[in-house]
Amino acid sequence: MGIVGSTIKPFTNTAFQAGKDFFDVTEKDIAGKWAVFFFYPADFTFVCPTELEDLGEQYETLQGLGVEVFGVSTDTHFSHKAWHDTSDKIGKIKYAFLGDQNHALTNNFGVLREGVGLADRATFVVDPDGVIQLVEITPEGVGRNAVELVRKIKAAKYWREHPGQVCPAKWEEGSETLAPSLDLVGKL
Amino acid sequence: MGIVGSTIKPFTNTAFQAGKDFFDVTEKDIAGKWAVFFFYPADFTFVCPTELEDLGEQYETLQGLGVEVFGVSTDTHFSHKAWHDTSDKIGKIKYAFLGDQNHALTNNFGVLREGVGLADRATFVVDPDGVIQLVEITPEGVGRNAVELVRKIKAAKYWREHPGQVCPAKWEEGSETLAPSLDLVGKL
Amino acid sequence: MGIVGSTIKPFTNTAFQAGKDFFDVTEKDIAGKWAVFFFYPADFTFVCPTELEDLGEQYETLQGLGVEVFGVSTDTHFSHKAWHDTSDKIGKIKYAFLGDQNHALTNNFGVLREGVGLADRATFVVDPDGVIQLVEITPEGVGRNAVELVRKIKAAKYWREHPGQVCPAKWEEGSETLAPSLDLVGKL
Amino acid sequence: MGIVGSTIKPFTNTAFQAGKDFFDVTEKDIAGKWAVFFFYPADFTFVCPTELEDLGEQYETLQGLGVEVFGVSTDTHFSHKAWHDTSDKIGKIKYAFLGDQNHALTNNFGVLREGVGLADRATFVVDPDGVIQLVEITPEGVGRNAVELVRKIKAAKYWREHPGQVCPAKWEEGSETLAPSLDLVGKL
Amino acid sequence: MGIVGSTIKPFTNTAFQAGKDFFDVTEKDIAGKWAVFFFYPADFTFVCPTELEDLGEQYETLQGLGVEVFGVSTDTHFSHKAWHDTSDKIGKIKYAFLGDQNHALTNNFGVLREGVGLADRATFVVDPDGVIQLVEITPEGVGRNAVELVRKIKAAKYWREHPGQVCPAKWEEGSETLAPSLDLVGKL
Amino acid sequence: MGIVGSTIKPFTNTAFQAGKDFFDVTEKDIAGKWAVFFFYPADFTFVCPTELEDLGEQYETLQGLGVEVFGVSTDTHFSHKAWHDTSDKIGKIKYAFLGDQNHALTNNFGVLREGVGLADRATFVVDPDGVIQLVEITPEGVGRNAVELVRKIKAAKYWREHPGQVCPAKWEEGSETLAPSLDLVGKL
Amino acid sequence: MGIVGSTIKPFTNTAFQAGKDFFDVTEKDIAGKWAVFFFYPADFTFVCPTELEDLGEQYETLQGLGVEVFGVSTDTHFSHKAWHDTSDKIGKIKYAFLGDQNHALTNNFGVLREGVGLADRATFVVDPDGVIQLVEITPEGVGRNAVELVRKIKAAKYWREHPGQVCPAKWEEGSETLAPSLDLVGKL
Amino acid sequence: MGIVGSTIKPFTNTAFQAGKDFFDVTEKDIAGKWAVFFFYPADFTFVCPTELEDLGEQYETLQGLGVEVFGVSTDTHFSHKAWHDTSDKIGKIKYAFLGDQNHALTNNFGVLREGVGLADRATFVVDPDGVIQLVEITPEGVGRNAVELVRKIKAAKYWREHPGQVCPAKWEEGSETLAPSLDLVGKL
Amino acid sequence: MGIVGSTIKPFTNTAFQAGKDFFDVTEKDIAGKWAVFFFYPADFTFVCPTELEDLGEQYETLQGLGVEVFGVSTDTHFSHKAWHDTSDKIGKIKYAFLGDQNHALTNNFGVLREGVGLADRATFVVDPDGVIQLVEITPEGVGRNAVELVRKIKAAKYWREHPGQVCPAKWEEGSETLAPSLDLVGKL
Amino acid sequence: MGIVGSTIKPFTNTAFQAGKDFFDVTEKDIAGKWAVFFFYPADFTFVCPTELEDLGEQYETLQGLGVEVFGVSTDTHFSHKAWHDTSDKIGKIKYAFLGDQNHALTNNFGVLREGVGLADRATFVVDPDGVIQLVEITPEGVGRNAVELVRKIKAAKYWREHPGQVCPAKWEEGSETLAPSLDLVGKL
Repeated sequence: MGIVGSTIKPFTNTAFQAGKDFFDVTEKDIAGKWAVFFFYPADFTFVCPTELEDLGEQYETLQGLGVEVFGVSTDTHFSHKAWHDTSDKIGKIKYAFLGDQNHALTNNFGVLREGVGLADRATFVVDPDGVIQLVEITPEGVGRNAVELVRKIKAAKYWREHPGQVCPAKWEEGSETLAPSLDLVGKL
Repeated sequence: MGIVGSTIKPFTNTAFQAGKDFFDVTEKDIAGKWAVFFFYPADFTFVCPTELEDLGEQYETLQGLGVEVFGVSTDTHFSHKAWHDTSDKIGKIKYAFLGDQNHALTNNFGVLREGVGLADRATFVVDPDGVIQLVEITPEGVGRNAVELVRKIKAAKYWREHPGQVCPAKWEEGSETLAPSLDLVGKL
Repeated sequence: MGIVGSTIKPFTNTAFQAGKDFFDVTEKDIAGKWAVFFFYPADFTFVCPTELEDLGEQYETLQGLGVEVFGVSTDTHFSHKAWHDTSDKIGKIKYAFLGDQNHALTNNFGVLREGVGLADRATFVVDPDGVIQLVEITPEGVGRNAVELVRKIKAAKYWREHPGQVCPAKWEEGSETLAPSLDLVGKL
Repeated sequence: MGIVGSTIKPFTNTAFQAGKDFFDVTEKDIAGKWAVFFFYPADFTFVCPTELEDLGEQYETLQGLGVEVFGVSTDTHFSHKAWHDTSDKIGKIKYAFLGDQNHALTNNFGVLREGVGLADRATFVVDPDGVIQLVEITPEGVGRNAVELVRKIKAAKYWREHPGQVCPAKWEEGSETLAPSLDLVGKL
Repeated sequence: MGIVGSTIKPFTNTAFQAGKDFFDVTEKDIAGKWAVFFFYPADFTFVCPTELEDLGEQYETLQGLGVEVFGVSTDTHFSHKAWHDTSDKIGKIKYAFLGDQNHALTNNFGVLREGVGLADRATFVVDPDGVIQLVEITPEGVGRNAVELVRKIKAAKYWREHPGQVCPAKWEEGSETLAPSLDLVGKL
Repeated sequence: MGIVGSTIKPFTNTAFQAGKDFFDVTEKDIAGKWAVFFFYPADFTFVCPTELEDLGEQYETLQGLGVEVFGVSTDTHFSHKAWHDTSDKIGKIKYAFLGDQNHALTNNFGVLREGVGLADRATFVVDPDGVIQLVEITPEGVGRNAVELVRKIKAAKYWREHPGQVCPAKWEEGSETLAPSLDLVGKL
Repeated sequence: MGIVGSTIKPFTNTAFQAGKDFFDVTEKDIAGKWAVFFFYPADFTFVCPTELEDLGEQYETLQGLGVEVFGVSTDTHFSHKAWHDTSDKIGKIKYAFLGDQNHALTNNFGVLREGVGLADRATFVVDPDGVIQLVEITPEGVGRNAVELVRKIKAAKYWREHPGQVCPAKWEEGSETLAPSLDLVGKL
Repeated sequence: MGIVGSTIKPFTNTAFQAGKDFFDVTEKDIAGKWAVFFFYPADFTFVCPTELEDLGEQYETLQGLGVEVFGVSTDTHFSHKAWHDTSDKIGKIKYAFLGDQNHALTNNFGVLREGVGLADRATFVVDPDGVIQLVEITPEGVGRNAVELVRKIKAAKYWREHPGQVCPAKWEEGSETLAPSLDLVGKL
Repeated sequence: MGIVGSTIKPFTNTAFQAGKDFFDVTEKDIAGKWAVFFFYPADFTFVCPTELEDLGEQYETLQGLGVEVFGVSTDTHFSHKAWHDTSDKIGKIKYAFLGDQNHALTNNFGVLREGVGLADRATFVVDPDGVIQLVEITPEGVGRNAVELVRKIKAAKYWREHPGQVCPAKWEEGSETLAPSLDLVGKL
Repeated sequence: MGIVGSTIKPFTNTAFQAGKDFFDVTEKDIAGKWAVFFFYPADFTFVCPTELEDLGEQYETLQGLGVEVFGVSTDTHFSHKAWHDTSDKIGKIKYAFLGDQNHALTNNFGVLREGVGLADRATFVVDPDGVIQLVEITPEGVGRNAVELVRKIKAAKYWREHPGQVCPAKWEEGSETLAPSLDLVGKL
């Protein structure tokens, strides 16, 4: 596969975000920033709004870390706007939604369900070089957990920003890291 | 991509497991059971043992859920045995390690780092039909979290065993699920 | 091209229709009947609802003629339901809407805008043998006219049901037809 | 398909027009003008003259709108001239007829009936950039309606000449148009 | 090339013949008979009617020899009928005209002018086995001579019906033929 | 086919002509002149000498018209010379014979009988631009008529030299020609 | 190459032989016999008749050995006959000449001069199994020697008929042969 | 085939010649000279030494004519040397032997017996331009005749050195030649 | 590569062995036996006889072990016989030599020097199943050591005949072997 | 094959060597030096350590000859380090071990066991030009002999450094060599 470590392809999608007119997002808009692409199957459905709301609750934290967040489905930006206008859960969300009715972005990340036309329930975290660093996919009936996502983003940022150190299992911000060396080989 | 929803390919790998002679594992051995394939880069390194130990702490719980667990790297079963014999962290682990020096299993799951010969830090959960249901990949310097893995496996099992119900974001065993219907469309 | 005279390809799309649960429609459901496929770009937009409403006003007449009517866009059936629930114009419509987020039906009729993921503003009338008999396409900014559509469907039905007779320009139900013959050659 | 929105291919056809010697028409002659290509099966037949006459009655209006009009069949320009000389209906027509015995133009527009050598009963309206904007095809036994054609041409011209406005269903010259905006999403 | 000696391909063309309703002609209709296919560029033109009339004057003789005669152009049978109705020269002709607006027959005989859509001025004589025995082609501005055609058809029939004899240059019905033999080698 | 209207291909053949040493002929030798290529099956046979003699009688006339004449078979120039020395009919002939034992020229004109190695009984008239204008082919047992050939050559020359005029059927030198025009359409 | 040792391909050529009517020769006619194929460039030329006459003087001897003899050129059987009738040298020859104006036989033996259409001056001796056993080729200006050819045919026959014995250099009928054996290795 | 008339390909082979150290021979060494390549199956065998000895007896004559002579087999030059040292017949030979254990030269002349790895008993005479002029091949059990070879080489040299003259059958040095001309056609 | 572990291909080579007539050897002759293929560059050369003699001194031992021995070069069996007859060293050798002038066997084992036509100095030991078990190749100027070869053959035989035991470095007949087991992992 | 005589391909592998930090080795590091690549199946196994130890005992000698030595398996450099730390035999070794978990080097030398992922027990000696000069492969259960390896390396060096001399079988440093010459052909 090589998903982790691969660079994202160019894209252009129209976004809806509360309080703004429609606008286009491309790969250039996230150059130099961390970004989360949070795919979900369809507007107006069931698990999706709980996940989108859950992510919404971490949005301020993520903004604080300098991380862009995009919800993505194969619906249009018109549909995203309409959902926002009529749903309580969605209406509260501050981050942007990308319309991918053309399937291009979903295909680029490899999570278009063939013959169905809907995205998988998949999260990708892209680093400031446009390289995918974290992947998570759950099936149709299982919601993700935005808190754990934030933990992993913090670890990935720490690792990038502190060369020579790595974050062990379950690492939380502030806890100890490891510094690999010849002497540590076989000693853990 | 379609990783989630795809069926695993046949494989044959030699395993080391504490207290047993070397033995072969194939796709037939996990037919009808849930299984975790927990890939990591290399024996005798740094982040890996913390993750393997973290997973080891959930092994009893996972056994209680009827889930098979396999650690996998591109080292041989000889190397796994030697690591087990010389490392405190690894020496405590009860689940099996598969030797994949032939790269076949790592390639089947698409997580062989091209030109490097090592596996990604990737977790796959396979259902009793041999279908991949959960995927998680972190980069070289970021450890996973076995507690969250167990949460998702429980949700996936619940969803499989309770047709017509789905688990919302952050669902924990015992909390409420959702039952999708026409009336719920646009109402969440 | 040969659109007119070609047979429609098999399809399966999930439909929303007021007062019913979601249901699937295939080419078998229209075998032996005349059917109108009325493509439009997107739910929740502008020209579309005026055309859909205009067509809705002819629905009773078309039902009287035994003609099935389907609105089709690349939105999901969830989106169609949500639009129906929130729009006055759309809320009044009685005919079915097909969700084509998979693009298959739109592609079969050749009216998927490449690189956009939306359908053209295109009407196809299919005869009881599944053969396309009438085609009309207008650009993004120009609405169709359902009264003229009904006129042409009546003429096409008349021609099918009265072998040896043809309907001249602007023919209206009840007016004269022509019977081609050797003697008429060059006489009109 | 993408007919609407595609650009016409170069062509050279010999034309007959009442009161002129034979002359050639190419795609350059219509650059910068709206043009109607009105295909019909054959000279000296039955539905065709009624349609050609019907269109003839709108010719003055169309000239007033700056629209070029061409009747096209797979007959030669010699045949068009002979028909004009011997038919009352055709004898009155002022617009030009293109001889397409080479099938090139009919093929370019995709309306050559395979194995038959005759054109479909098809109308194409081309804008001043050479882009097809309106399509209409009826079967062998059903005549078109030139009044409706003029309505749609007027709407298409209006839309082109008034950026930001679109013509709803059944729009007639002078009636209201719509101006799409974020606020209108889901409100029609 | 091998035109002479090749067998004609199957064809189906609609014919106009004075005093009959339109009818189809296929290769089966000439099986067992000699037949002349007399191609010409277009109805309503200039050299063509003089040649068609010239051939018409030999039609009775050819009928007496049991030879079928077909005029062929890429015009329709409707056009042939209209020309017959309006031209003095053509109005007198008794043999059939085939409509080849589909170009199939003209192509089969290899005389479709590429990029023009008109037939060459070409004559083919086919024997009762469907084998082409005589070919003659003249350019656009040069008419053929039906008397010479009849001379050659008589010679070809004589040769077929008198095995062992051949017709020398300029042979006319009733004059001497030659019987090839070893003794004649080098003696003429 | 497109024989008439096609340009001859380059060739080099050794010629025998009474009273000269052997010499080569190429397509350059006939540039700017009319030329007749008169193919026949074989030296020392039966119909061939009568045709060659018949053509010989028109040679002076053709020379007067500036037309080159070549007899061609797949025999060598040695064989042509030997035939000339031993046959009365051939011994009188003044025009050149080309040796085509290499089959190249016969193949270029498309009249090599496949599997036999002999030429058809075929005449080609080439204009000063190297373009084939007249074709005539008769079967093995039927001789051609050089007088009719001269008639057609005269007509073709007339047409070439008098732009705007064409020669009707059976035209003989000095008789009337036609001048095509719009007014003549359908009037002959 | 592998000429010697290869089997001749099927062929059918028309032959001229003094005192007989023309007849066909195929590979079946020489099955079970030795045969000489004596190719030469052209009838009516210069070296050829001296070689053909030279071979003619050995014909009785060859017939005595049961060997068939064929002269072959790319001339026709008509030409062979005419040459026989007019040349003293050729007129005396009793063996058959094959007409190969189709080039097939010359090509099968690989001695057609490309771009020339004439055979090489080449001799092939074929054994009763149709296998080529002797080859000799000389250039255009060098004649062969039939006496040496007869010597080699006798040696080839002797070798075939006396298994275990071979004919040394310059062997003549009646002189000693050799019997290869282990003991002779390196002893000659 | 076209062997006669073809140019030899480049080669490099190591030679053994009595009284010299091993040396390489290439096509450049024979440029400007006549050369004989005398292939034979194998060192230490039976017919071969009689032929090589027979050729040896003509070597002085051939040297007098300026002709190079090479014996060639698929043995090495070591083997040639060893044979020379141990065989009376071979020990007397003065000309060079080429080692072709690489098969390249034997393949270039087309006389490698496929699947056997030995050369045919084949002679090639190459002229000073590197063009093959004479070919002779006999089967395994039949020896060649060096005297006849010398006769043909003399004739080929004579023909090359006396343009306009050719050597008839059986020509011997000093006897008459022929001068081809038009007048001689059919006179021999 | 996978030479070791691959199965030898079928072959047929003619052998010379002292005291026998020539005979053929194929892969069937060594089925069920161990065999040594001892390739060397050429008969009558320098390093080769010392190696062949060295191997000859071990021949009795190898026969005692039931091992077949073949010397192989691209010389013929005739050459092998001649060498045997004239060389003291080679004359003493009892094992068989295979003639591989066809290069097939040398190619099968992959040791034909490309462009040279000689074998490498290569040894292959084949087990009773036809599988290659030992390979050794030295360059042109370096001789092998037959004593070490015998040591390795004995070890390979021992290993085959004693499942579960392996021969350590430098193992000599009679010394200790190892029995791999889980407990030995990492303990040597 | 052509292994001996072929040039090694570029490579980059990470090495472990006692007393150093990990470092990379490429083909450039051995340019101008002799080098031994000593492949073995796996760390922590059975025959391997005996061979590695055996080679270790010759390391000082090889260093004295200026020869680089590399142990290579498909294990990682981490595993090599761990083995070194825990095994007595391996702990004593001074030469470097290359990690080839990527299989690239093993593949380049053609000794990766297909479907297994382990190297053969194979030794390659590369000369200062990067050309492979010595090859030895034994099966899984048979250990090599480092003393014999040293003998062959000395012979190969001698041969390289003394042009015109070669080392016979079993040659030991200081014993006699051979100087090939014409006079020696067939004399050994």
